[in-house]
Amino acid sequence: MQKRKAVVLLSGGIDSATCCAIAKKEGFQVSALTFEYGQKHLIEVQRAQALGKALGVEQHVVMKLDLASLEGSALTGAGKIPHGREDPTKCGIPPTYVPARNTIFLALALAFAEAKGMEAIYVGVNCVDFSGYPDCSPEFLEAFRQVAKVGTKAGVEGRAPQIKAPLLYLTKAEIIRRAYELGVDLCLTHSCSDPDPAGRACGTCDSCILRKKGFEEAGLPDPTVYAEKANS
Amino acid sequence: MQKRKAVVLLSGGIDSATCCAIAKKEGFQVSALTFEYGQKHLIEVQRAQALGKALGVEQHVVMKLDLASLEGSALTGAGKIPHGREDPTKCGIPPTYVPARNTIFLALALAFAEAKGMEAIYVGVNCVDFSGYPDCSPEFLEAFRQVAKVGTKAGVEGRAPQIKAPLLYLTKAEIIRRAYELGVDLCLTHSCSDPDPAGRACGTCDSCILRKKGFEEAGLPDPTVYAEKANS
Repeated sequence: MQKRKAVVLLSGGIDSATCCAIAKKEGFQVSALTFEYGQKHLIEVQRAQALGKALGVEQHVVMKLDLASLEGSALTGAGKIPHGREDPTKCGIPPTYVPARNTIFLALALAFAEAKGMEAIYVGVNCVDFSGYPDCSPEFLEAFRQVAKVGTKAGVEGRAPQIKAPLLYLTKAEIIRRAYELGVDLCLTHSCSDPDPAGRACGTCDSCILRKKGFEEAGLPDPTVYAEKANS
Repeated sequence: MQKRKAVVLLSGGIDSATCCAIAKKEGFQVSALTFEYGQKHLIEVQRAQALGKALGVEQHVVMKLDLASLEGSALTGAGKIPHGREDPTKCGIPPTYVPARNTIFLALALAFAEAKGMEAIYVGVNCVDFSGYPDCSPEFLEAFRQVAKVGTKAGVEGRAPQIKAPLLYLTKAEIIRRAYELGVDLCLTHSCSDPDPAGRACGTCDSCILRKKGFEEAGLPDPTVYAEKANS
């Protein structure tokens, strides 16, 4: 029997890596899809590639996406990165928001899944320990599922790829525990929005704060290598 | 007072060109967005550029989109093009269907519109004289509007770009009449899915058949240059 196929949006962070391990655990033959869309730090893409290998994905597509051609800074995260905010989950949508990013990523994953006859798309969005991005919300996912259902050939034929977001309602600590259980090598993941030139995490941006808090609450060792200033 | 801004998805065909003229008529300062996504015939992109110029758009972005990296043929229209079908509107979804194409195009237009503070996105989809693509349906548009509403910062702040499809319920003849009224130079438009090397229309693919029928029903001269075999 042919194995059921799924695509996982793999960014290099904890959430998407865990999502990828869950997809495998749920019995799918997994392809990973990563976008090089003009992130300031290519370390994200490198880590995604390392994770894909470590997690044993069948195929890893890294697609270049020239969002900069859509006119500039707001689309490639050049907004000022906030540092030292105590609880990023309560600060509204931060300047690191990239317009319609997950809509674009899911649209491309949908095309990929449909073209390859895949059954599911896994996306690591989360609406608990997150920065308030609207394209990580349950309402957004539900709206996108409807797009897949009525806007594709597969969908109108009753076999739209399912859009699975298994981490949606988990805390960061729960995600980290799940990652440990599934044997995800969290050393390979990268979360920081503002790493130093050596790729070490700043320790003070929203992503670092949420990540640190997650490891603390999970009571598990944090393998993150922080830049020196972050430890001072 | 600053003029209201809109982006128009401009493909080089009659519908998107007419849509562009409508957006201008409705008072918008118009940017055009065209994708070079691996179409077999780059004439579409050339015509879109000529139309943008003729219609006086403020800015024309031609974005390269490497859909081929998403694994192949089904995404770049290598399906066999049907010829000589009497009524393409009654034949179901044809092999020229490109998975999730309009979802991808609208997602990128949404990012562009949000980044530039635009009020509207114009798209030339039509569900009357069309080939049965699911991503041209009213249900699809409605689902995508919901994505824009709940999945963007602009949307949750109550100012999601409107997604306007002024041609949705028009026949091809009505669209052509509207184009004439608005002074669109239809000589510049290209519809054929299977042109000869000189860019002349085949006259027998679904797009050519719908176009010819449109001009006939509108009672207006068809400026299309057909390849010789099409006249024999």
